[in-house]
Amino acid sequence: MKKYTVGIDFGTLSGRCLLTDVETGEEIATSVFEYPHQVMSDKLLDGTPLMIDWHLQHPQDYLDVLHFTIRDVMHQANISNKQVIGVGVDFTSCTMLPILKDGTPLCFLNEFKSVPNAYVKLWKHHSAQPWADKMTETAIRRGEKFIKRYGGKISSEWMFPKIWQTLEENPEVYEKADTFIEAADWIVMVLTGNLVRNTASAGAKACWHKKDGFPSKEYFKELDPRLENIIEEKFWGEVRSIGTRAGLLTQKAAELTGLLEGTPIATAHLDAHGATVGAKITEPGKMLIMMGTSSCHELMCSTEEMVPGICGYVEDGIVPGYYGYEAGQSCVGDHFAWFVENCLPASYKEEAKRQNKDIYSYLNILAAEKEVGETGLIALDWWNGNRSVLVDGNLSGMILGYTLLTKPEDIYRALIEATAFGTRKIVETFIEYHVPVDEIIIAGGIAEKNPFIMQIYADVTGRTIHIAGSKQNAALSSCIWAALAAGKENGGYDDIKEAADNMGNIKDVVYSPNWENKAAYDQLYKEYEVLHDYFGRGINPIMNNLKKRMNECRRNRKC
Amino acid sequence: MKKYTVGIDFGTLSGRCLLTDVETGEEIATSVFEYPHQVMSDKLLDGTPLMIDWHLQHPQDYLDVLHFTIRDVMHQANISNKQVIGVGVDFTSCTMLPILKDGTPLCFLNEFKSVPNAYVKLWKHHSAQPWADKMTETAIRRGEKFIKRYGGKISSEWMFPKIWQTLEENPEVYEKADTFIEAADWIVMVLTGNLVRNTASAGAKACWHKKDGFPSKEYFKELDPRLENIIEEKFWGEVRSIGTRAGLLTQKAAELTGLLEGTPIATAHLDAHGATVGAKITEPGKMLIMMGTSSCHELMCSTEEMVPGICGYVEDGIVPGYYGYEAGQSCVGDHFAWFVENCLPASYKEEAKRQNKDIYSYLNILAAEKEVGETGLIALDWWNGNRSVLVDGNLSGMILGYTLLTKPEDIYRALIEATAFGTRKIVETFIEYHVPVDEIIIAGGIAEKNPFIMQIYADVTGRTIHIAGSKQNAALSSCIWAALAAGKENGGYDDIKEAADNMGNIKDVVYSPNWENKAAYDQLYKEYEVLHDYFGRGINPIMNNLKKRMNECRRNRKC
Repeated sequence: MKKYTVGIDFGTLSGRCLLTDVETGEEIATSVFEYPHQVMSDKLLDGTPLMIDWHLQHPQDYLDVLHFTIRDVMHQANISNKQVIGVGVDFTSCTMLPILKDGTPLCFLNEFKSVPNAYVKLWKHHSAQPWADKMTETAIRRGEKFIKRYGGKISSEWMFPKIWQTLEENPEVYEKADTFIEAADWIVMVLTGNLVRNTASAGAKACWHKKDGFPSKEYFKELDPRLENIIEEKFWGEVRSIGTRAGLLTQKAAELTGLLEGTPIATAHLDAHGATVGAKITEPGKMLIMMGTSSCHELMCSTEEMVPGICGYVEDGIVPGYYGYEAGQSCVGDHFAWFVENCLPASYKEEAKRQNKDIYSYLNILAAEKEVGETGLIALDWWNGNRSVLVDGNLSGMILGYTLLTKPEDIYRALIEATAFGTRKIVETFIEYHVPVDEIIIAGGIAEKNPFIMQIYADVTGRTIHIAGSKQNAALSSCIWAALAAGKENGGYDDIKEAADNMGNIKDVVYSPNWENKAAYDQLYKEYEVLHDYFGRGINPIMNNLKKRMNECRRNRKC
Repeated sequence: MKKYTVGIDFGTLSGRCLLTDVETGEEIATSVFEYPHQVMSDKLLDGTPLMIDWHLQHPQDYLDVLHFTIRDVMHQANISNKQVIGVGVDFTSCTMLPILKDGTPLCFLNEFKSVPNAYVKLWKHHSAQPWADKMTETAIRRGEKFIKRYGGKISSEWMFPKIWQTLEENPEVYEKADTFIEAADWIVMVLTGNLVRNTASAGAKACWHKKDGFPSKEYFKELDPRLENIIEEKFWGEVRSIGTRAGLLTQKAAELTGLLEGTPIATAHLDAHGATVGAKITEPGKMLIMMGTSSCHELMCSTEEMVPGICGYVEDGIVPGYYGYEAGQSCVGDHFAWFVENCLPASYKEEAKRQNKDIYSYLNILAAEKEVGETGLIALDWWNGNRSVLVDGNLSGMILGYTLLTKPEDIYRALIEATAFGTRKIVETFIEYHVPVDEIIIAGGIAEKNPFIMQIYADVTGRTIHIAGSKQNAALSSCIWAALAAGKENGGYDDIKEAADNMGNIKDVVYSPNWENKAAYDQLYKEYEVLHDYFGRGINPIMNNLKKRMNECRRNRKC
C-alpha cells in the first residue's frame, strides 16, 4: 500500500494543499482554497474601519482550508486516509493572533468581534511601527546582545511589536488572551491540541535564541512594566525544533480534516525557511532563492556568523543542526509587473499579441539582442525599499544612463540586471562573512518561465543556477517535513537528507555562466556597488529625504 | 503708404519668411519653404555615401527660400515691393560652406558635386570632432586666452574644426575655396554682393573677439603649418556688428527675390542670439529662453564676465553695445517627446483621446494634482548630455525615487521639473558670476501651449515668467533688425530699443511664482544640486563610463 503525506502551504491570499507519494515525491493532487475574507485592510466584516497600515485576516479561513482542501486531495487521488502518514504545515510569518487556552481565537468571541486587535495580524500589518521603533531604541540603549542578530533593528512585522500594540490599544484583549501565537503554530495546535512554538518562527520573528532564549525580563520591563513577565504570561509554551513531530491528530481535528485520528503532525515551519528541502537542500553551501513578487534567500551554515544586513539567523531555523540565514529582496516580480503596467507603450503589447507571445517573452527577445552594457543603463532595484543588505524600507528605485535612444526593452533589461546585482551583493556579503555560497537554486514561477532572467543571474553572479522542480516548492517541502514527522516506522523517514533526496525535486536544466558576459558584468557591478553604497549607506540620504516629503504629501491628502 | 520689412529665419529643415508692419510689428503674412534636400546624413544626391556624424545641406535650398517665400508674402499681403524697406536674415550656426570669390558655393561646380566637404556643413555636423579636440588641446597647452571664453573647449560644431576637416580630407577643396563662410553671411552676400561677417556668428563660433580678433597665426601654425595664414587666405573680410546695414539689394538679387534693387539689407544674425528683440529685450537683466526640442538662453551684460560652463560670450553678439551670453539645455521638448513615445501605457493615450485632449494636456491635468515633492521623484535631464553649465555631451539622464506607486504622470512631472532645475542652475551660475537675471521671457511652442510647464518654471526659478507674443519670434526679430538697417530716413528706426518696443511682442499672460511651491522646490533643488555635482563634475564618472561601453557595443554592431 502506497504511503502519502499532506503538506499545506498557507500563503497571503490562499492555502494550498499537496498530496505527495512518500517514496518518490510524486505530486499526486493539489487543492487551493482562497481565503473568503482575503486581507482586511479597510474594514472588518461588520464595517469597523481600519486605520492606515492595518492588514488583518480571519482565522476561520485557515480552518476552512483544512476542512476543504485535505478532503479534496484525498478525493482526487482516490486514496484512503489510512495511507496518509503525516501532515506538514508552513505559513507566512510573523502572522499572529491572540487565543484562549483551548486555542479559540479571541475574534471568535462575540465581545471582540469588532475589535481589530483581536484578529490575525498578517505578516505585512505595519501599524506596529512605533512599538518596533521603541523596542529597537531600548535594545540599543541597553546594549542588548540579541539586537545584533537582527542587523540592529526590530521590524514592525515581528511578534512583540504586534503584541505590544494590542496591549496599548486594547488592554482588554491583551488581558483576555491566554497567549499570542504564530498562525503556523496555531494550525498545529488545532490539529494536535499541543501548543508547540517552532524554532524557525520563534528565532526569526520573536527574538528567540537557542542558547539565550527570549529577551530578558529587564528589557521587557523597561519597554513597559506590564510586559515584564510577558513570556510566562502571554508567550508560554515549548519552543521545539523544526523537523520534529508536534503531536498526533486529535479526534476533533480528524473530524475537521477527514484524516485518521492519530496521524503524526510535524512541527510547523516558515514558508520560505522550510522550503529548501523541496529543492533537495539540507546542508550548507547551497542557497535557495524563492523568487516571486519579492525574493527570499535561504542558506545554512555550521557556524553562527554575524553577517551585516542579513535580517536574522536562527539555529535550527531551516534544517535542524544548522544555523539558518535569510536574506531578501523586496521587489522582484513586482518590479517587472510595475514596469509592464506603467511604462510600456501600446505598440509593444500589440506586437507581442500579434506574435502570439506573452509580453515577457516578447520583451525577453528584444532585450536579449543587446550585449552586456549596450543599454547604457544601470538601476538600483529598490522600488520597495531594500531588505538585504541595507535594511532600509525608505530607499527607492533609480535608473541612470537614459538617452534619447533608450528603448523600453533597455529599461526592462536594466531592471532585471538590477535584481541580479542585488542578489550578487547578498551572495558576496555572505561569503565575506564566512557563510559559503557554492550553488544557487531558484524556485518560483519566474525561474520556471523566464530562462532569459535565469541566464542573467548566472552571468552576473558567476554561479551555476539550478531550478527547483516543483511548481509548489513550499507545499512539497511541507510534505517532506510531514514524512520526517511520520518516521521510518510509519513508512516515512528518520533522516531529512534521505527524505529530501527522495522526495525533493530539481529540474534537469542548468544555467551556466557565460564567462565573457560575466567579465563585462564585473565592470558594471563595480559601478553598481559605488551607487549602492552612495545612496544606500547614507552618504547621500536623498532617497530617505524624498520619501519623507512624499509621505507627508500623501498624509496631508488623506486628512 | 504703410512700410514693411521682411525677416527670414533659416532653420534646420525649412526657411520661414515673415512680412511685418514696421510701425506696429503686426505680422502680415508668412511663408514657409521646406528644404527639398533636407539634411543629408546618409548620402549625397548622386549616391556618394556619408560617414557617421555627417550632416550636410544643399545651398540651392536656401536660394529657393529667397526665391519663393518673399514673393509669396508680398503676394499674400498684396503690397508693392516699394513698401518693403528692409530685409533681415537669421540662420542656424555654425552652418558653413566653402565659396568662390563671387559667392558661388563649391558644390555648385561639377568637379566637386561628389565631394562631401564641398557642401554646406550643418550646425549639427559632428564628424569634425578629432580636429576640435586637437584645437582644444593645443589651445590649453599654449595657454591661449581665447579658450577661456568658451569654457575651455572648442566644439566640433564650430567653424575652424569644420574648415580643418576639409583641409585634411579634401585639400583640393580647401585650395579651390576663396573663403569659408557662415551660411547666414552667405545669404547676405547673395543679396548685397558684400562679404560681411556678423559679430554674433564670428564671436560665438569662430573664436573672434572684438579687441583680440581671431586666434593668432602662431596658434594656427602649431595646429598645422598650412593653417598659419588661414585668416588672410580663407577667412578674410570685415567682421561687422549685428544691428548694422550690410549693403543694398543688388540687381541680380532683386531678380531672385522680387524685391526692389537698393533695398537695405541687415547684417545677418544667429537665430537664437538675434531673437531677443522680438520679445522686446534690448538690454541686460532679461533672459530670453528659446524653448523647443532644446532650449537656448540669451542674456546681455554691460561687462565681460568669465562665467564657467557658459559656452561663449560675444561683444555685440546679441544687441550692439553689450556682451551677449548664451547658455543651453540640450534636451527639453525632445525629452517630453521621448517619454510620450517610449514610456506611456496605452491606457493614457486612450483616455486622452476619450476626453478629446492632446496627450500633454491630459498629462498636465494628472501631474498638476500633485503637490511639490509628492511624486517622490527627482531627475537629471541629461538625456542628450549637458550643455550648460557642465559642457559634457557624454552625461546621461537619471530618475531617482521610484516606488511601486510611481505613475507615468509622476515621471512626466519629474522630467519637467528637471528641465526647470537645469534652467535655475544656469540662472544662478550667471548671477554668481555677476551677470544679472531679473526676468525671464520664454519663446516657442511649449511656452505658448503648456501653462503647467510655465508655472513650474516660475515656481522653481522664483522669477516671473513672461511669454513671447509671436509664434515666430526669430523671424519677427529679423524683421526688426531689417527695420533698423533701413533706418528712420526710410521709414524704419535708428534705435533698436525703439524698434523692439514698437515691433516686438509679449503676451499679456504672466506666470508669477507661488511662494509656497517655491519654498518646497528650494528643498528639492538642494537635492538636485548634490546629484548635479556628483554625477556632473566627475566625482562619480559612471555616466561617461556607461556611455563609453554603450558606444563600443553599438560600434561593434555596425562593423
